[in-house]
Amino acid sequence: MENAFIIAIDLGGTSAKLAILQPSGDIVSQWSVPTDISDEGSHIVPNLIAAIRQQVADLHLNMADCLGIGMGTPGTVNVQDRTVIGAYNLNWAKRQNIGEAFEAAFGLPFYLDNDANVAALGEQWLGAGDGASDVVMVTLGTGVGGGIVSAGELLHGGSGAAGEIGHLTIDPHSSIQCTCGKVGCLEALASATGIMNLARLHLTHTQHQTEVSQRLAAGEALTAKDIFTAAEAGDAFSQEVVKQFCNYLGLGISHIINMLNPSIIVLGGGVSQAGEFLRANVAKQTEKYLFPALLNTYEIVLATLGNDAGILGACQLVNLAR
Amino acid sequence: MENAFIIAIDLGGTSAKLAILQPSGDIVSQWSVPTDISDEGSHIVPNLIAAIRQQVADLHLNMADCLGIGMGTPGTVNVQDRTVIGAYNLNWAKRQNIGEAFEAAFGLPFYLDNDANVAALGEQWLGAGDGASDVVMVTLGTGVGGGIVSAGELLHGGSGAAGEIGHLTIDPHSSIQCTCGKVGCLEALASATGIMNLARLHLTHTQHQTEVSQRLAAGEALTAKDIFTAAEAGDAFSQEVVKQFCNYLGLGISHIINMLNPSIIVLGGGVSQAGEFLRANVAKQTEKYLFPALLNTYEIVLATLGNDAGILGACQLVNLAR
Repeated sequence: MENAFIIAIDLGGTSAKLAILQPSGDIVSQWSVPTDISDEGSHIVPNLIAAIRQQVADLHLNMADCLGIGMGTPGTVNVQDRTVIGAYNLNWAKRQNIGEAFEAAFGLPFYLDNDANVAALGEQWLGAGDGASDVVMVTLGTGVGGGIVSAGELLHGGSGAAGEIGHLTIDPHSSIQCTCGKVGCLEALASATGIMNLARLHLTHTQHQTEVSQRLAAGEALTAKDIFTAAEAGDAFSQEVVKQFCNYLGLGISHIINMLNPSIIVLGGGVSQAGEFLRANVAKQTEKYLFPALLNTYEIVLATLGNDAGILGACQLVNLAR
Repeated sequence: MENAFIIAIDLGGTSAKLAILQPSGDIVSQWSVPTDISDEGSHIVPNLIAAIRQQVADLHLNMADCLGIGMGTPGTVNVQDRTVIGAYNLNWAKRQNIGEAFEAAFGLPFYLDNDANVAALGEQWLGAGDGASDVVMVTLGTGVGGGIVSAGELLHGGSGAAGEIGHLTIDPHSSIQCTCGKVGCLEALASATGIMNLARLHLTHTQHQTEVSQRLAAGEALTAKDIFTAAEAGDAFSQEVVKQFCNYLGLGISHIINMLNPSIIVLGGGVSQAGEFLRANVAKQTEKYLFPALLNTYEIVLATLGNDAGILGACQLVNLAR
């Protein structure tokens, strides 16, 4: 078994990351292939299969030593059937039978999960989760996503939507509308989009006229990063906005901790690049809303694996199923 | 194996319910013993052991046919160690090594969990959960408790507090204080205590002077049941209070569904005796706060097992571990 390896795939809308790993998560080889979404995405899976065949041959590996293939994909995944539907950035509107295609090609165990779940599993296993059994990842990007690992296993729920925390209703009285149709969703308040929603709202009633508030009022296209950087540098308007952002995110994280009692909450995604400034602020706001008995049972930490989280999580999908 | 049986214990502050069951959950024999909490609760476990020995002898059963013993207890349980701490209604302030005592007595597999978790497992298995793999129970009594079953297994979290949903911060701006020290906890707003908190608060600004509001203003000791009964009979003040109660409870349940995607939410506990009137109202309020994609993925139902939930859940603890 010393030659045993696992194949991992992290499929995205522009490219797929692939890797061949030892079961320990040590990467033997890592590469990527462009994602061809033409013809209703019908070339995606054949291209992945061909890329794997080529790489295995180039490395003189024996497919008989492969323990299995793990894969993360956008869209709504049926983990048992290993199918995916509604991955619109891949042009996969209809159900795709990924498991069947991979098993026909390789005759190996194949495991599929949602990309947010797979990244959470990666961070839990070898990243900021440090192997703890109960870890929740909160991914702060354009939207808010997440994945829940409980007793070392990903939660899926009755129809595969567990961990999709972006639409927790955090402020039912908010005037900020979410793309989903509701108001006050976590994703509309505490994502890259959310912080700009909050900044524009604060503009209407702030008492702080600062460089950032004036640039924003002048219609300049600022980013989440601009607001965080200015807040850290002392811009009072931006500080007000970041405080509100962290208050909302803290309330959302308190719901996770009060309900699920994880020992580690991992903050990932582009917004988490605001780093320790963000982490410390969110941690402080979270405490206000926690059942006091839970105050010393958890840590809020920043993700550490970056773009490798998906590959490592896909590898761990295979390990968990063995 | 046709003679195989399971012993189940549901330990409470005044009495313990015990049962001998077939693995299917069919009850062979059911009885109860008083809980003697004197001497720091040191008689409780020996009394349970003696009661089981006696019943097994009376029924001419052979302990060699027993598959295991399952038990639910108040307090904070360590499921791996099978110990409990902080069960104050049993005078168990210090850690109790229940598992060791039962194994020394019977030499059989022994499984321990929190009473709210065990009741949730019972309802999930043979009650309102109807065997669905993803079920959350919300217990509405003096406080609010709960238990989460995901993929057929109870969640425990990093320190055994998963499913303790009573301290979700539902209204951070509420003036209603919870016993835990926070404001706006689900338990302070949407329990038997919570509805009286809401009623007293509404009294200060309601536009409805009704029989119930007048009795309450006169200092009469009304109960949660009085408010629900009056609301159902058309008392406008009580209807206002129940609507607020269901709005808060619906927001809390929406957090559960948005985060965990269960297919069934079971309402139990004394307040759930308000029945279909409560259930329908809560279901309506919940929908307002749900991610639209989840709208047809779940049912909110009333518990069906009553006091037997704990015994059946304790039996299922043994089944799940086999």
